[in-house]
Amino acid sequence: MRKYLSYGMVGGSLNAFIGAVHRVGAAFESIATLSAGCFSTDSGRNRACGEFYRLDSERVYDDYIQMAKAEAARADGIDYVVIAAPNNVHYPVAKAFLENGIPVFCEKPLCFEIAQAEELKRIADEKGLPFCVNYSYTGNVMVKEARELIRQGYIGRVINVNAEYLQEYLVDDIGKGDQTMNTLSSWRKNPEVAGASNCVGDIGSHIENTVAYMTGLKLKRVTAVLDNFGQLLDLNANMLVEFEGGAHGVFCSSQVCVGHMNGLTVRIFGTEGAIEWVQENPNVLMVTKKGQPMQIYHRGMAYISPKAAAFSRLPTGHPEGVYEAFANMYTAWNRALLKRINGEKLTAEDLDFPNLNDGIAGVRFIQAAVKSSKAGGIWTEV
Amino acid sequence: MRKYLSYGMVGGSLNAFIGAVHRVGAAFESIATLSAGCFSTDSGRNRACGEFYRLDSERVYDDYIQMAKAEAARADGIDYVVIAAPNNVHYPVAKAFLENGIPVFCEKPLCFEIAQAEELKRIADEKGLPFCVNYSYTGNVMVKEARELIRQGYIGRVINVNAEYLQEYLVDDIGKGDQTMNTLSSWRKNPEVAGASNCVGDIGSHIENTVAYMTGLKLKRVTAVLDNFGQLLDLNANMLVEFEGGAHGVFCSSQVCVGHMNGLTVRIFGTEGAIEWVQENPNVLMVTKKGQPMQIYHRGMAYISPKAAAFSRLPTGHPEGVYEAFANMYTAWNRALLKRINGEKLTAEDLDFPNLNDGIAGVRFIQAAVKSSKAGGIWTEV
Amino acid sequence: MRKYLSYGMVGGSLNAFIGAVHRVGAAFESIATLSAGCFSTDSGRNRACGEFYRLDSERVYDDYIQMAKAEAARADGIDYVVIAAPNNVHYPVAKAFLENGIPVFCEKPLCFEIAQAEELKRIADEKGLPFCVNYSYTGNVMVKEARELIRQGYIGRVINVNAEYLQEYLVDDIGKGDQTMNTLSSWRKNPEVAGASNCVGDIGSHIENTVAYMTGLKLKRVTAVLDNFGQLLDLNANMLVEFEGGAHGVFCSSQVCVGHMNGLTVRIFGTEGAIEWVQENPNVLMVTKKGQPMQIYHRGMAYISPKAAAFSRLPTGHPEGVYEAFANMYTAWNRALLKRINGEKLTAEDLDFPNLNDGIAGVRFIQAAVKSSKAGGIWTEV
Amino acid sequence: MRKYLSYGMVGGSLNAFIGAVHRVGAAFESIATLSAGCFSTDSGRNRACGEFYRLDSERVYDDYIQMAKAEAARADGIDYVVIAAPNNVHYPVAKAFLENGIPVFCEKPLCFEIAQAEELKRIADEKGLPFCVNYSYTGNVMVKEARELIRQGYIGRVINVNAEYLQEYLVDDIGKGDQTMNTLSSWRKNPEVAGASNCVGDIGSHIENTVAYMTGLKLKRVTAVLDNFGQLLDLNANMLVEFEGGAHGVFCSSQVCVGHMNGLTVRIFGTEGAIEWVQENPNVLMVTKKGQPMQIYHRGMAYISPKAAAFSRLPTGHPEGVYEAFANMYTAWNRALLKRINGEKLTAEDLDFPNLNDGIAGVRFIQAAVKSSKAGGIWTEV
Repeated sequence: MRKYLSYGMVGGSLNAFIGAVHRVGAAFESIATLSAGCFSTDSGRNRACGEFYRLDSERVYDDYIQMAKAEAARADGIDYVVIAAPNNVHYPVAKAFLENGIPVFCEKPLCFEIAQAEELKRIADEKGLPFCVNYSYTGNVMVKEARELIRQGYIGRVINVNAEYLQEYLVDDIGKGDQTMNTLSSWRKNPEVAGASNCVGDIGSHIENTVAYMTGLKLKRVTAVLDNFGQLLDLNANMLVEFEGGAHGVFCSSQVCVGHMNGLTVRIFGTEGAIEWVQENPNVLMVTKKGQPMQIYHRGMAYISPKAAAFSRLPTGHPEGVYEAFANMYTAWNRALLKRINGEKLTAEDLDFPNLNDGIAGVRFIQAAVKSSKAGGIWTEV
Repeated sequence: MRKYLSYGMVGGSLNAFIGAVHRVGAAFESIATLSAGCFSTDSGRNRACGEFYRLDSERVYDDYIQMAKAEAARADGIDYVVIAAPNNVHYPVAKAFLENGIPVFCEKPLCFEIAQAEELKRIADEKGLPFCVNYSYTGNVMVKEARELIRQGYIGRVINVNAEYLQEYLVDDIGKGDQTMNTLSSWRKNPEVAGASNCVGDIGSHIENTVAYMTGLKLKRVTAVLDNFGQLLDLNANMLVEFEGGAHGVFCSSQVCVGHMNGLTVRIFGTEGAIEWVQENPNVLMVTKKGQPMQIYHRGMAYISPKAAAFSRLPTGHPEGVYEAFANMYTAWNRALLKRINGEKLTAEDLDFPNLNDGIAGVRFIQAAVKSSKAGGIWTEV
Repeated sequence: MRKYLSYGMVGGSLNAFIGAVHRVGAAFESIATLSAGCFSTDSGRNRACGEFYRLDSERVYDDYIQMAKAEAARADGIDYVVIAAPNNVHYPVAKAFLENGIPVFCEKPLCFEIAQAEELKRIADEKGLPFCVNYSYTGNVMVKEARELIRQGYIGRVINVNAEYLQEYLVDDIGKGDQTMNTLSSWRKNPEVAGASNCVGDIGSHIENTVAYMTGLKLKRVTAVLDNFGQLLDLNANMLVEFEGGAHGVFCSSQVCVGHMNGLTVRIFGTEGAIEWVQENPNVLMVTKKGQPMQIYHRGMAYISPKAAAFSRLPTGHPEGVYEAFANMYTAWNRALLKRINGEKLTAEDLDFPNLNDGIAGVRFIQAAVKSSKAGGIWTEV
Repeated sequence: MRKYLSYGMVGGSLNAFIGAVHRVGAAFESIATLSAGCFSTDSGRNRACGEFYRLDSERVYDDYIQMAKAEAARADGIDYVVIAAPNNVHYPVAKAFLENGIPVFCEKPLCFEIAQAEELKRIADEKGLPFCVNYSYTGNVMVKEARELIRQGYIGRVINVNAEYLQEYLVDDIGKGDQTMNTLSSWRKNPEVAGASNCVGDIGSHIENTVAYMTGLKLKRVTAVLDNFGQLLDLNANMLVEFEGGAHGVFCSSQVCVGHMNGLTVRIFGTEGAIEWVQENPNVLMVTKKGQPMQIYHRGMAYISPKAAAFSRLPTGHPEGVYEAFANMYTAWNRALLKRINGEKLTAEDLDFPNLNDGIAGVRFIQAAVKSSKAGGIWTEV
């Protein structure tokens, strides 16, 4: 019976902040060990990263296809691959590892095209391979608590959703023409690397997924207005949404809203109550029954539902943040993989991480938003 | 040279909360005295109100047309009338007083139809009569501070607006059929009394006006989704907006958002900075320059601009609220009327209160939102 | 049966902000009318104030003793006097009016010496005259709600108190020698006018009273450290307190704490729960049961207890501030005086305003704090 | 030239939450590896922990003295030991490792007696061994930013300090007699294990250290009132403090304050400005210049000073919490140890972690607080 896992990584070399977050997250519970990688298309960086993590040099690959094949062939090959590379390589990398029978833990968005996303799902289904799309905010304990409360009917039927994800860090790009190549996040503004959208793809997709995770609601259609402000891709997006069942809502994502650092705020309104979660203060949840005072739920207290509390690490009032949300993604993922390897039956609860269906929904949402905006802001099916 | 004013009131009898707010607001500076009224269509209530305020009984009128004529004919007739009655009588009452040469201080929304609004403006212009539409949130010192900062270019060019006005008090009306007649605010849900909209008309119109007051921007078009939830009029509205000049934004108004008491929040984003004002904590203003820390401006401090500070009454940290915002509406109005009566020249600054142009803009906004929603949520010119 | 009252004022001329607050507060319910005054020791200012309020010129007095006698002698004399003058005249003015049989509504602190305070109480008791000491924060609806919840046992037995009143406005006085005469509030730093303490007397006394009002607890002893920073009186004070019954706590008052405008925050901790009120956001109350989420109570909601709700004017979410707290002080006071005049029996609930016992407690507290600090910060009986 | 470190741990077996936090923190940068341990006095637990971390079984010790000797004797022996055991063993364990020449990273409080603390310092000094006392809140980026701003004179001379650390989790212990043995944290209430104080020792000591770290000020004397509420040790403490140089302040620590989870709040007031940090929202810092608006500094922004920013891992608005603060403690510690091992010169900046002087100051503070309270709350030298 296996108790430990080994994994490989594509992308995420030493200077890429998200790679480090994945490695810390995967290692949080000392169950998974980094054993192989293809960290960068720059060979020097790739080697340097492998050396820093003291990997066997033959398991540091210059080519991800070679890596997929070689690791699949080893008796001690990796149990899964983490894809922490830019958006445009998600699809081919994921496909390569799936085809070689290796489970995939992939950054979001899953890929560019709906057809690609569905292809990945088909392969994974055929081979029976687990796949996690890293909508990492779902790793937050209080996001899970929101989901549990809504599932239990605490707020009644959802009637309205108001969610936003606001940042200010690209405000200087406004009106300055095509500067896709000269800043740190420049790849995000380059359609060839980032896909059809910058702002909706990068952060708007978190709105869509977090709302879906909390409520279980599917988006039906969207009216979107994207502002490029002279760039190739969008920096700002305001959207009206309609869910299956008829509930309406608003999604706003922006990278030009001064005063907002990383402001993902989700408010779900129901017939009996409401729930609000603010990513920058993630250890609390505002929970209100109609006619009653707003309550501030704290992670770590006895009243938190068991399914959410299962992911809580520290006593109440001791902040857990982004690393711990990532760790929770890997907690669920690693445990599920161990069970699978050990031949244990996986329950729905074991699979509490976003999967290819969520990844497909995300691609559909991004595509619909871009399409709506290009058509002048008309209602577009998701 | 006159130093005091007398005014009359239509509507606002003893049991109407808004009437009392007007009377306290008008009296705050001890310049204006209530001298006449037609407080209620119920003769007993009308008389009781006149007696409570110790009015001359012959100046308590059963009919507002009679009041307009009689007061216009008296040597000591009222200097202006306050209209604090339900929406459907704003137009005929305002018209009656204007036609008798009496300035009008009218609750919002101004009236139901654009043509009515334009007619009132035509009469007022012809007779040279001042007219205030009581968008009372513009009376807040920190709303004025926001306006001044934006005028001075503090936040650069406005590129995005995110404003909402959320309440929960009608959540129990959802799915309960037509209950327009059986609750306190039932008239607001009755189209004959409230007009084409409940939620957009009552509170959404404050969003439109507060944004316009702060930024000077005009709405160009709107896409709106109104939810009636089984009532005759809307209880919830999500809107995308476009301003002249091209800036986009989102307006959300709702009376079914549990956990929100009277949540008017306005956020204006510019190329150089941003400003946020929250009505429930009205004595502060969040002001941010791009790349810099958010600053919390407090009313009453020396750094507040003179035009806003001119309306500040109490030292910093001593909360001023809704009554004081009303008082500020009357401060500007009363001072302007005294200047006019005394033959002094009125400057733009003297007229710092919403006028008939603002009232017309409000009616146009409500009409466009309703029209857009009825057409399935398409872009509609304002 | 009388329905209206008339009152006079000592102090509070046109340029004194607190005088205006009293006049607006007294007039909020249109029951009490200003009819006489001795507004300033400066005759010109005194007359100007009387003229502005259109008083009968013979009822504008240059001397408060003359005023007390003359008003007592008039058939239409004032029903009560409001003392809005600096601290040093509270005692002689209050005494003069009490001796002439006129009820007194007096600013805090009541007076300088315990003996003076007890003398005022003796006179008022002998003559059966109502007396209100204007600890105006007790006029806040949510302070009353705190009192009701604590009375009802919601938080169990009080075990700890943490209360502070922090301002920054005198920070520039630090280390600049005796500047008692050259700033707006200079009288507060002059022992002859302000008494034994500036900071504890002006704002620390509000801590003591608000805690006493909420909890019903009496202070037993205090250890205080007052910092004068080169001024004649204190600008900063940190205190440990012990209540009768054994509960401990901390009181901090300061006028040199940068970043704090008018920060009165009271936190009462009990064996079963806790309550927190913050003056700068006065329409809410934080209420927590042990082991449960903190709840944010809003003024105006149905769950507010009737005794507190009786003082609520506006719907929930419509901020009431300092003027409304003053208005509530006068609501209770005016109603009690009308009942008394009309020969009705007054209940304890009718007398929901701080009286001479509270005033005496305040003087005792200030004296004990100053005495403790002078003795090097030792425990001193209150 | 060494690039990696190995460490051992005393205490912190699998079921002790703090052990896991240390292990994650030490491993955050993939520089230090757990190689030896004496995790529990329970042999089974000790072995289980060693096995989980896949340690060489001969390096899992039943006895910490044996571990110190054996590891000191190995060529590949540990580079330092982490002490994550209860308070009462800090001293003997630290002494054993120091005497064997092994650097120590020790949980706070350092030990029970001042003499013990000074003995540890004498040994460490004689042997030239680094020693970190894990006042982990100093690992927060924004605590470091506060320190830098104060060092740079941003708030002028410190004149007043108001700091508190409030929790509710022991409120049920009130009045229930000696229950030292029956709850999770029972050892904290047992003087034999926890020392002279529970509440001041456990959390009050963090107040003392965080204030000292931010300001550089030394405590001179304290007046303390500790409440045991029927327990053997204190559950609540209110203290007045005086710093060398004359500034005064208040420290409050409590484990019975309902509504407070882990509320360490530090407010430092100076002649020119003020700084406030709240542990439960650790990524921001409130910074105010006198007369100016309060500013909300966010970790990760360009305006953060380089010395603080050096410890920032994630982009602004991505919360870092307790694990990351621990990681920062280890970042500084691990880097300093590598430099030392590699014979590089260590600067003051390299030693940015609390050392034995800080540990001694902590023991002195706890002793003085307990002594003051036992003497009836009199001023006691620290």
